[in-house]
Amino acid sequence: MPTAEKDHVYKILELVGSSETSIEDAIKNAVGRAAKTVRDMKWFEVVQTRGHIENNTVRHYQVTLRVGFTLEG
Amino acid sequence: MPTAEKDHVYKILELVGSSETSIEDAIKNAVGRAAKTVRDMKWFEVVQTRGHIENNTVRHYQVTLRVGFTLEG
Amino acid sequence: MPTAEKDHVYKILELVGSSETSIEDAIKNAVGRAAKTVRDMKWFEVVQTRGHIENNTVRHYQVTLRVGFTLEG
Amino acid sequence: MPTAEKDHVYKILELVGSSETSIEDAIKNAVGRAAKTVRDMKWFEVVQTRGHIENNTVRHYQVTLRVGFTLEG
Amino acid sequence: MPTAEKDHVYKILELVGSSETSIEDAIKNAVGRAAKTVRDMKWFEVVQTRGHIENNTVRHYQVTLRVGFTLEG
Amino acid sequence: MPTAEKDHVYKILELVGSSETSIEDAIKNAVGRAAKTVRDMKWFEVVQTRGHIENNTVRHYQVTLRVGFTLEG
Amino acid sequence: MPTAEKDHVYKILELVGSSETSIEDAIKNAVGRAAKTVRDMKWFEVVQTRGHIENNTVRHYQVTLRVGFTLEG
Amino acid sequence: MPTAEKDHVYKILELVGSSETSIEDAIKNAVGRAAKTVRDMKWFEVVQTRGHIENNTVRHYQVTLRVGFTLEG
Amino acid sequence: MPTAEKDHVYKILELVGSSETSIEDAIKNAVGRAAKTVRDMKWFEVVQTRGHIENNTVRHYQVTLRVGFTLEG
Amino acid sequence: MPTAEKDHVYKILELVGSSETSIEDAIKNAVGRAAKTVRDMKWFEVVQTRGHIENNTVRHYQVTLRVGFTLEG
Amino acid sequence: MPTAEKDHVYKILELVGSSETSIEDAIKNAVGRAAKTVRDMKWFEVVQTRGHIENNTVRHYQVTLRVGFTLEG
Amino acid sequence: MPTAEKDHVYKILELVGSSETSIEDAIKNAVGRAAKTVRDMKWFEVVQTRGHIENNTVRHYQVTLRVGFTLEG
Repeated sequence: MPTAEKDHVYKILELVGSSETSIEDAIKNAVGRAAKTVRDMKWFEVVQTRGHIENNTVRHYQVTLRVGFTLEG
Repeated sequence: MPTAEKDHVYKILELVGSSETSIEDAIKNAVGRAAKTVRDMKWFEVVQTRGHIENNTVRHYQVTLRVGFTLEG
Repeated sequence: MPTAEKDHVYKILELVGSSETSIEDAIKNAVGRAAKTVRDMKWFEVVQTRGHIENNTVRHYQVTLRVGFTLEG
Repeated sequence: MPTAEKDHVYKILELVGSSETSIEDAIKNAVGRAAKTVRDMKWFEVVQTRGHIENNTVRHYQVTLRVGFTLEG
Repeated sequence: MPTAEKDHVYKILELVGSSETSIEDAIKNAVGRAAKTVRDMKWFEVVQTRGHIENNTVRHYQVTLRVGFTLEG
Repeated sequence: MPTAEKDHVYKILELVGSSETSIEDAIKNAVGRAAKTVRDMKWFEVVQTRGHIENNTVRHYQVTLRVGFTLEG
Repeated sequence: MPTAEKDHVYKILELVGSSETSIEDAIKNAVGRAAKTVRDMKWFEVVQTRGHIENNTVRHYQVTLRVGFTLEG
Repeated sequence: MPTAEKDHVYKILELVGSSETSIEDAIKNAVGRAAKTVRDMKWFEVVQTRGHIENNTVRHYQVTLRVGFTLEG
Repeated sequence: MPTAEKDHVYKILELVGSSETSIEDAIKNAVGRAAKTVRDMKWFEVVQTRGHIENNTVRHYQVTLRVGFTLEG
Repeated sequence: MPTAEKDHVYKILELVGSSETSIEDAIKNAVGRAAKTVRDMKWFEVVQTRGHIENNTVRHYQVTLRVGFTLEG
Repeated sequence: MPTAEKDHVYKILELVGSSETSIEDAIKNAVGRAAKTVRDMKWFEVVQTRGHIENNTVRHYQVTLRVGFTLEG
Repeated sequence: MPTAEKDHVYKILELVGSSETSIEDAIKNAVGRAAKTVRDMKWFEVVQTRGHIENNTVRHYQVTLRVGFTLEG
């Protein structure tokens, strides 16, 4: 959690990002997509790391995140 | 989780549905109600099963669900 | 959870409230802020209690809550 | 949990009910049996769902419940 | 847990206390009510902290406790 | 777990069964399919209950089970 | 859990046994003490293993058990 | 979990993969090795991430996976 | 987990061993039985300790183990 | 967790504070005592809340904390 | 936890002890080794029980403990 | 855990490492910093993966580790 300013309130979103490349990239995709509608995201926490397998090969990483953002005013 | 299409991002809602009849019916009530405002729900996961007792009889089942849906474009 | 009326559906928000004074005050701040946009909150559950330390003194309590409210009609 | 009246205290019992038919029926059997000695049961929470298999067929469902009831006066 | 005397056996009760004032007061209410029927309580452990909201204000704290007491002789 | 006969050893399989009808039916499908290759299944435990949603309707229940069976002699 | 006979209901007690000798002995002490007031105990499950240290030596083992017994007729 | 086709049953394997390079590489090594004996793997879930340290340097990542695959016919 | 050699992959079995004597003996019985079909077991982890009670006396200890072994080549 | 400056490393201590007055006071006592030997504490997280009962009255609150502090240079 | 004297603060160490003989002996080895540098240890809690297997035989028990001791003055 | 030599005792440290680059790099930073004061680190386990977001972009990964090292003599 971020250094709280006085009496701030945060809301937590839960998102699933996916990527063919890496766990970090799946996190970035989730945060990047959320940025279209949410401002002031402050932190994330990884809740689960999963993925899909096709033809006996890892095809996607899927990372479930809790993301905290400031509720303004 | 559904088979992820390339780099999709999902959001997870948490809902509580109730029913006098069955656990499955409580799940359906929660999903049906959410369908009024959320499109493209893909999966659910049961987090908790509870219920109320009146006059020493089970009166409602209450099921807490996490529901995933696609964040479009 | 509240005494369920027939086939009601509830949604759960996750919030973080903070206070310099007490855990109870951090809970109240989170609920009070959420009241600006959510009606019909019914119950909360404390998920985590944390805080910040500055100059070797507790500076804020930060309480993560799950808050349930009725989805109308 | 039920809507608390002022300063009520509840006690929680832990029970295991079983049924050859369904999970809901195992819950009802546990609550019905407890009703012989406990008054004022208010809510239950499913802690675990198990069962027995005989001749490669599911024979019983066994559901472990926590059941809350009011401690009077 | 208390410092065990030789080969003592303890039993654990699970209680829910509530208070309009504070988490500590909800704990005291549960312990005080249990004292009417149980002697020799030694320790408690907070299992869950919840509460009710009415008119967008916290109305009660509800604390679930496990309470240990000595089984005599 | 079953009443253990002297010094028996059990092995635990983890399975996911699915059904369009009910949670109980998903359990039965998993046990029935495992019965093709495993003898002497004794008990199961539900680890997770999930499902898929299509067109805003629950389409399948998916139940993850741990299933215990006797390792013979 | 024991092989359930038809529609039996079990109740679960939670106990803490202690012993200066071994974990097994602490379990036996708890079961032996409970046998003074409870009939038809069927199974136990270890929830926690703790102990006390005096003069830098282990002095007691303390084992928390959940014990299931049959609720008759 | 994959989009379930009608009444499919899946089995879950638990594997530990290791790699000197990255967490993703440890996952791929486990899946690649399992592919020698298991067909139709569909998804994985990371259960634990550990590693070994030699000469004060990270030497291996070790990732424990649950891997689901279709039980045919 | 054992000191990993380069890029080894391990598989995890889950077993339940029982003994009338001790927890350690139940572990040894499970490992000894598994040794009839599995080579190269490297480590175990205790997941649960339970037991059966007959005539108010502990009759068996039942220990659930996860056991890791090397997948060769 | 605090806003991380570039590549900082934190260490986590685990402490138990006690107080006859309140949960918040038990937290402050633990942090205050740790301040005698640790500099640069940044955050805490409550892991467990317990307490002692004497003469059927709550006598102490005992709060287990994880406390993070900066490892310098 | 021990009976707290007024406003005492405890610190928790986490240790892993091992023994070829028994779980109890692994606990004693950890406590005995810690006694070389820590005074006033008061209680322990078993966090995990694992072990190593060589030649299909249990070779060591490894027990992870949390150990509490008094912070003086 | 490493292959235990006879009756060794390990101590577990809990650390948080951070990195702007990757989860693996955050692990390496924590281990590298601890190496300044601790010898004979043997293994680590990832307890939590979090991070900070600035300007809607992932800025740091923060990984909480438990690190085991040998207590000599």
